[in-house]
Amino acid sequence: MTRQELIHQIFTKKTFLCVGLDTDIKKIPEHLLKEDDPIFAFNQAIIDATAPYCVAYKPNLAFYESMGVKGWISFEKTITYLNENYPNHFIIADAKRGDIGNTSAMYARTFFEEINLDALTVAPYMGEDSVTPFLQYPGKWVILLALTSNKGSHDFQLLSVDNGQLTVDSSHADSSQGGSQLSTVNSQLSTPQERLFEKVLRKSQEWGNADNMMYVVGATQGQMFEDIRKVVPEHFLLVPGIGAQGGSLEEVCKYGMTKDCGLIVNSSRAIIYADKTERFAEVAGEEAKKVAEQMAALLS
Amino acid sequence: MTRQELIHQIFTKKTFLCVGLDTDIKKIPEHLLKEDDPIFAFNQAIIDATAPYCVAYKPNLAFYESMGVKGWISFEKTITYLNENYPNHFIIADAKRGDIGNTSAMYARTFFEEINLDALTVAPYMGEDSVTPFLQYPGKWVILLALTSNKGSHDFQLLSVDNGQLTVDSSHADSSQGGSQLSTVNSQLSTPQERLFEKVLRKSQEWGNADNMMYVVGATQGQMFEDIRKVVPEHFLLVPGIGAQGGSLEEVCKYGMTKDCGLIVNSSRAIIYADKTERFAEVAGEEAKKVAEQMAALLS
Repeated sequence: MTRQELIHQIFTKKTFLCVGLDTDIKKIPEHLLKEDDPIFAFNQAIIDATAPYCVAYKPNLAFYESMGVKGWISFEKTITYLNENYPNHFIIADAKRGDIGNTSAMYARTFFEEINLDALTVAPYMGEDSVTPFLQYPGKWVILLALTSNKGSHDFQLLSVDNGQLTVDSSHADSSQGGSQLSTVNSQLSTPQERLFEKVLRKSQEWGNADNMMYVVGATQGQMFEDIRKVVPEHFLLVPGIGAQGGSLEEVCKYGMTKDCGLIVNSSRAIIYADKTERFAEVAGEEAKKVAEQMAALLS
Repeated sequence: MTRQELIHQIFTKKTFLCVGLDTDIKKIPEHLLKEDDPIFAFNQAIIDATAPYCVAYKPNLAFYESMGVKGWISFEKTITYLNENYPNHFIIADAKRGDIGNTSAMYARTFFEEINLDALTVAPYMGEDSVTPFLQYPGKWVILLALTSNKGSHDFQLLSVDNGQLTVDSSHADSSQGGSQLSTVNSQLSTPQERLFEKVLRKSQEWGNADNMMYVVGATQGQMFEDIRKVVPEHFLLVPGIGAQGGSLEEVCKYGMTKDCGLIVNSSRAIIYADKTERFAEVAGEEAKKVAEQMAALLS
């Protein structure tokens, strides 16, 4: 799906919701366990009920891999079902892949040729040649991890990194001001430095652009969206962390929304597990509708 | 497998070779394509031929995922075959996984409970809660990406990061030495800083230890092993990049080997694709034997 098509879908349907298909055999309604493929049966019902209220679906591969071969069958059936019945929905595999060049190329072939997804989440740690193989497919997207929604995001993503221009301004260093010079020197240093997630945002723009790359930015870091928009004013951001993880939709939109919307906001558990009875799909649809109504208000 | 068992295997067999099972349907000998499961048939023959010369096997998940459901079946059959016939070999899934806590826990369950591997490679970008779920299984290992073998490793892994103690030594900053002060200030700054991969090595020691954590360090960065051993003197390192990627075994051992060996050196393409005729397995065995002989000399 192209950027223009995605924007068209968002403004036509007045929603930028992504429903996360984090389908866990231990959490789905019990009556589904007698189905041949309970995971697929659950997904199919959730998709049918929520499709009018969302523009994207995002299965997280971990939940399917945990079921081994059976899980892969459920995953592929889900993607085929989406492609056949909901061709206007944007399909993201939350896989967080990334490997040396020839191996990333294998992953790209799997997800973009064999399985026909629109987008894949990719981890940035291994750098350029781990990411660029995913950018060779027209209409397909890399969604690069930038600032994630979890507590561990603070361990590395927020570190100040030397962006290669670390210098001390000599006009300040030359002047003799005793003790006060210390703070002057420190403030001069903070300018050329940036945080690792900002470096990832900036550096990766050498590899892709706003037509084939998005970034994962967790909703739990609401006020950070202002800083992020300074580096990527146009790119779409995939935003997990609304709902079960506690992020605020209003805050994300206040700081992160652009004239093209520029946001795909994901909710998984709060929608798909809202009810565990035979009414589970209907209730999931109602929850998705509530979020979509909030989104419609925020879009206008 | 425990650290002591691994060390015992290395010194008994006089090898620290890991054979990478990066099995690509497009690269295996043509006569295998008529088998029911060509990937498994290839792996089985490679394993039987190389087992005396290696202590570990490392299938890279990308190659199996690229075959979809069939690939997962081949992967699981390979692991079962190894567990049943070669219980003293250390089995690594090169998966480079890592996600928010509850999702990493799903991956851990998959790879350590369902599939019964010894170790999994994990990407560090998402921090503590993306890694620790993998550390809850006695005898199982996390192998965290630190300094990878690819060109893109330079994009982020080598960045200088502020380790949270970035200060200017005031005894130097106070003294007025005109122009020469600049270099003094800069050299003061370089001490508390470290590179991102060193930060990953240091920080992750708060989560695991030398009994349940190893690090990926590419052989293409030979001289870096000296710096790495300053931060992780005891940990095992998984070293890709020998062979097709051009790393030097001698250099890796010179700077990286410890009294417990401390190295598992991987070779994939140079061994498994050494020959493409019906003699492929025999030739792979010969290649593995050559590497093992070099290793025996380096161990003594």
